[in-house]
Amino acid sequence: MSTTPASALAILNQPSRHAPGNLAGAAPLRFVDPDAFHVGVRDLGITRGDGIFETIGTVSGIPQALEAHLRRFARSAAALDLPEPDLAAWRAAISAVTDALSGHREAAIKTIYTRGIEGDGRPTGWVHGAASSDFTAARRDGLRVVTLDRGYRHDVASTSPWLLQGAKTLSYAVNSAALREAQRRGADDVIFVSSDGIVLEGPTSTVLLLRDGRLITPGPGLPILDGTTQDSLFAFAAHQGIPTAFEPTTIEHLHSAEAVWLVSSVRHAAPVTAVDRVPRAAGAELTAQFNLYLAGRGTEFADRTA
Amino acid sequence: MSTTPASALAILNQPSRHAPGNLAGAAPLRFVDPDAFHVGVRDLGITRGDGIFETIGTVSGIPQALEAHLRRFARSAAALDLPEPDLAAWRAAISAVTDALSGHREAAIKTIYTRGIEGDGRPTGWVHGAASSDFTAARRDGLRVVTLDRGYRHDVASTSPWLLQGAKTLSYAVNSAALREAQRRGADDVIFVSSDGIVLEGPTSTVLLLRDGRLITPGPGLPILDGTTQDSLFAFAAHQGIPTAFEPTTIEHLHSAEAVWLVSSVRHAAPVTAVDRVPRAAGAELTAQFNLYLAGRGTEFADRTA
Repeated sequence: MSTTPASALAILNQPSRHAPGNLAGAAPLRFVDPDAFHVGVRDLGITRGDGIFETIGTVSGIPQALEAHLRRFARSAAALDLPEPDLAAWRAAISAVTDALSGHREAAIKTIYTRGIEGDGRPTGWVHGAASSDFTAARRDGLRVVTLDRGYRHDVASTSPWLLQGAKTLSYAVNSAALREAQRRGADDVIFVSSDGIVLEGPTSTVLLLRDGRLITPGPGLPILDGTTQDSLFAFAAHQGIPTAFEPTTIEHLHSAEAVWLVSSVRHAAPVTAVDRVPRAAGAELTAQFNLYLAGRGTEFADRTA
Repeated sequence: MSTTPASALAILNQPSRHAPGNLAGAAPLRFVDPDAFHVGVRDLGITRGDGIFETIGTVSGIPQALEAHLRRFARSAAALDLPEPDLAAWRAAISAVTDALSGHREAAIKTIYTRGIEGDGRPTGWVHGAASSDFTAARRDGLRVVTLDRGYRHDVASTSPWLLQGAKTLSYAVNSAALREAQRRGADDVIFVSSDGIVLEGPTSTVLLLRDGRLITPGPGLPILDGTTQDSLFAFAAHQGIPTAFEPTTIEHLHSAEAVWLVSSVRHAAPVTAVDRVPRAAGAELTAQFNLYLAGRGTEFADRTA
């Protein structure tokens, strides 16, 4: 364990097969000092938030739901008209960074892919990994959430694709601002609601509800990300004989459901214990099962999407 | 002229007086190679688009509407709960970069201020300048625009401040996507409209209209940026005896107005020659006066806001 670094960074020379590489003759992948500078000030990733990312959890050196993350990464790239990512190159980089951090029980691996320096036509790509924070408390004791208006109607993903809802872009300032607003209100996290009252998602998570014995996630057709962790938990639920569905969800459902969770790739399943200051039951038994399953993906349960 | 570099980059050691500096004992300002790497991969400016910027035009070595830009920069910082920027330090950096590029008739100076490396509490700040592109054609021949739904109601700035509308954040992926949508529709630029049909702004510009002999900009209270160039042109109009006003504006007004412009700090005033493929008159005479005035700010007309 003492030889495992706290973080690791691999830079892809050519993150898309169809766009030029960044350094002539360079290796496909370079491990570099994670704390040094590797981004130019004219990279559109920073000047415009013009790029995409994924955050992949690893447990015991195994990236979880890897292929689901890569598929979403490719969909996000298409939504932003970025050059198609070379998923084989990304897979190799994720694997190398995961291996470098395999001494940590849990790590968070972030893939970042930007449009590159303005006018160059050479996208920028890297994979950064670090040991995870300790999410024991959130997984066990849960989260107090506030609902916040996301400002968009529930149907903008189909009417206005330029709003990029459903793509995981680097333009996350609103997500960060919403989490600060939650803190101001004495809460831990946020559930976004559409301007017409439909529950959407958390700023960095997917909403799950247990309702009439069924596992529900908001949908279909909403301006939200496809949840990779939600997808894993739906597979787990099906295996356990729990019916699952995408259903329109309201704030009232957040109060009346048997249980509500925010689920995400690194924090896993965190039960919601209050909505807008109104306490609610946490569903402790199923939470423990969810987190046991999520931590075991790729080992006792094969990643069937690979 | 041959000794003027194409671009220049100054990094601020301590962009906020109240937050720690980045390098102990470093000079307040370091000129560095603009094409080298100066940003860390964990800077929240790139991982979350969590920061702000301004783009300031210079003409003949004079930054235009500098104090208006700095005031907006400070307002954006407050909207994002960033440490208050040290405007004296920013002013000095802008001045130094402007001077380095004074051999160019027009330059664009970009100030970038991010929350810095996650958890560090040390914000990142730099000023990058480069010779401007040639906007002669846009200023003279105008722009074909399409109207696109911005997805937000006209009142979200007051109801939902966490949406950060009115702050100039680095999370500009939607603005870039809208410009690509315009290109797909055979147009040059975009005018965003609220979900309830109110004209807002361009992705990188403010909308002006000449209506019944008055110079109008959409407002008040909309989820848009305060236009620094609009503000300058309102001052010019007042000087010319043209009445000015902030008024609710609809797409029908874009068709019926005597003239419509997109105005911005570097491209200056570009007349709109078509809205959603319907041609409209360009208002050539006033356009020329606007651009003459904008190019002369700080010289024949003093920047009265300084």
